[in-house]
Amino acid sequence: MEKKGNVLVGQSGGPTAVINSSLAGVYKTALDRGFSKVYGMRNGIQGFLDGQYVDMADYVKNELDLELLKRTPSAFLGTCRYKLPAIHEDKSVYEQIFKLLDDMEIEVFIYIGGNDSMDTIKQLSDYAILTGATQRFIGCPKTIDNDLALTDHTPGFGSAAKYIGTSTKEIIRDAMGFSYQKKNVTIIEVMGRNAGWLTGATALSKGEDCDGPDKIYLPEVPFDVEQFKGEVEKLLKKKDVVVIAVSEGIKNAEGTYICQFSAGSDSVDAFGHVQMTGTAAYLANYIHDELGCKTRAVEFSTLQRAASHLASRVDINEAFMVGGAAVKAADEGTSGVMVVIDRLSDDPYQSSTGVYDVHRIANAEKVVPREWINKSGDYVTDEFINYVNPLIQGDYQPMMVDGLPRHLTMNTKGYKDEYKN
Amino acid sequence: MEKKGNVLVGQSGGPTAVINSSLAGVYKTALDRGFSKVYGMRNGIQGFLDGQYVDMADYVKNELDLELLKRTPSAFLGTCRYKLPAIHEDKSVYEQIFKLLDDMEIEVFIYIGGNDSMDTIKQLSDYAILTGATQRFIGCPKTIDNDLALTDHTPGFGSAAKYIGTSTKEIIRDAMGFSYQKKNVTIIEVMGRNAGWLTGATALSKGEDCDGPDKIYLPEVPFDVEQFKGEVEKLLKKKDVVVIAVSEGIKNAEGTYICQFSAGSDSVDAFGHVQMTGTAAYLANYIHDELGCKTRAVEFSTLQRAASHLASRVDINEAFMVGGAAVKAADEGTSGVMVVIDRLSDDPYQSSTGVYDVHRIANAEKVVPREWINKSGDYVTDEFINYVNPLIQGDYQPMMVDGLPRHLTMNTKGYKDEYKN
Repeated sequence: MEKKGNVLVGQSGGPTAVINSSLAGVYKTALDRGFSKVYGMRNGIQGFLDGQYVDMADYVKNELDLELLKRTPSAFLGTCRYKLPAIHEDKSVYEQIFKLLDDMEIEVFIYIGGNDSMDTIKQLSDYAILTGATQRFIGCPKTIDNDLALTDHTPGFGSAAKYIGTSTKEIIRDAMGFSYQKKNVTIIEVMGRNAGWLTGATALSKGEDCDGPDKIYLPEVPFDVEQFKGEVEKLLKKKDVVVIAVSEGIKNAEGTYICQFSAGSDSVDAFGHVQMTGTAAYLANYIHDELGCKTRAVEFSTLQRAASHLASRVDINEAFMVGGAAVKAADEGTSGVMVVIDRLSDDPYQSSTGVYDVHRIANAEKVVPREWINKSGDYVTDEFINYVNPLIQGDYQPMMVDGLPRHLTMNTKGYKDEYKN
Repeated sequence: MEKKGNVLVGQSGGPTAVINSSLAGVYKTALDRGFSKVYGMRNGIQGFLDGQYVDMADYVKNELDLELLKRTPSAFLGTCRYKLPAIHEDKSVYEQIFKLLDDMEIEVFIYIGGNDSMDTIKQLSDYAILTGATQRFIGCPKTIDNDLALTDHTPGFGSAAKYIGTSTKEIIRDAMGFSYQKKNVTIIEVMGRNAGWLTGATALSKGEDCDGPDKIYLPEVPFDVEQFKGEVEKLLKKKDVVVIAVSEGIKNAEGTYICQFSAGSDSVDAFGHVQMTGTAAYLANYIHDELGCKTRAVEFSTLQRAASHLASRVDINEAFMVGGAAVKAADEGTSGVMVVIDRLSDDPYQSSTGVYDVHRIANAEKVVPREWINKSGDYVTDEFINYVNPLIQGDYQPMMVDGLPRHLTMNTKGYKDEYKN
């Protein structure tokens, strides 16, 4: 077998419970297919531009390490939110990157990330075409938000949905047990700025032993605070325990995020996105003030993207699969594509991978189709549940050491000098 | 075997992940020891006073149901926060209760709960002594807070500690992965009004693969907001990622709860306790405003007491054991006691049950000894960790159905008519 060059892999954007399973898939497949070395960018393209990278072989020394990596949440390599400039605006960044790629004998560049990360793949592959560079650039989908176009779903979504479904069920049970002669309203806030996939996943808690949330509000439908109060009031006439799920990104008809009604929510990130938080707290205070009942706000916070102790087996396996498929596509000469997951059948659930031109994906957001939300805009339909359900199946047990899940880590302390290569 | 009368069991106070394992222990042991029926109070003594109770045999029909019950979080029977009046103040409530007990041929009254619930056992057993009633009254310890006197620890604590340790570890990993060139401070808020047992359990995350929180602030030590800012500032000079755990109940030297500095925290419950929430949010905003870095507040909220999907096997088994021990003690003629757990050895961990006069327990709170907190009052010692560590060992897998844990429930919807007997 002809000796191949090296692979460079990075992770970008918000972490997930299975982002490292994709990294494991890249690493294993790259070695299996005869690539020489697999380098990992530290902290994405931003760290790489600062000269930070590692040889994966220094950290993943055997099959046990590989399995631990698959079970480790959050980006093993570290991540960033960094937007490359347009090529015509600033060529120097590109020249710097491609010089590094040449020096490191990189043949394949794989970036595991979401929408913003696919923009990086698009720019780099465009630049390679413009300059005749031979490296291949492949995107590997990753986001709990499930908002990438053209792929049936994204790795990371299934595990987040499983965590959200389970936790919603436990929160409902808790609220029900503790309700006597004290009406209470719990408002659960779920991640998802513009897409309600994760918020809708709270409906998974509905089944023979749980009635699920009473209402589910997705960001796809304008949210009316007054009408919401009316619905809660109606529910409290029939029930003592009311549980409602809302997306962090719900907006009123004028387009104002509900969380912006509360204090301290005006910061924006590098991509200009408003930082969301406080939607549930605002609504819980509002309902308490208006209706006088006991209310509680629950934010799943970063746990919904980091809870690898409750990962879905389907999700971990698919994350691994797309990592491998990215290497395979590059090895076969493809570039400027993102790996996608195609759903072959629902029952039994089967999936395979494909690739799509990254120009068709970057910066496009896939939201929940309006027909998968009920007419009154306050619950998801059975079609929605049937779509998500296969993705939360099966467990991938953490390796428990001394009572807690063990993770594979490069850096435990976060002290500054550990970031230097 | 002589035919025995009936057992009445109730659950009270805040739910835990294993409170139903004690219920299962009561039920199984009562049947094994020849009691006729086991009745469950709906919603504790308060629901019972309203005539609400069930026959456990209607809900637990076989061994599978019993196992499901052990894995179901939150009070299966419902719970309440209800304080009996002093006997000399109002005899009529007592007369009503004892009339019901006579009518239902109750020989044994078991109440699974925390401090406030032990007060109920004390009052009822005192009243029985005063009136010559023959029923036996036994308390069964239950609280995630671990603040009951004379027992080595309380069922519910170990599972909450395991959840808190695991989630803290996942939150730290998440924060570390997402840190590049953006200093961030995460403040985790943990339950525990006056006792820091649960907040200290965040230190369990410390190990070979995780450095644990940077600081841990327990309610046992006065909290100085200015000094806290100084500590965070010092940490941020050395590190990009800072994670701090605080108890919801930390107070300043004047005795004011930190959460009271934030809005909307002035409500009190039936026992006159201030409702805690917002400590982490207040400190995160404060640090953001003062130091300008990115901050995030994470509240474990009700998940820390309801996450039976991550229960500790030691805890589930001990909860079951104390339920059984309560029935045994009553069957042997004991009354007015609470079952306690005695630790026989640490390595290997072994425990057994005993009983203590409930007068020595009720309304006393066990806090973390000062010598188990470091000198500067911002971390727990190894003694603390060695004490908690055995209690989080082993898993008790949920029964997964269609991707989510299955629970045993009496009532799924929370509609009012379901509360009626």
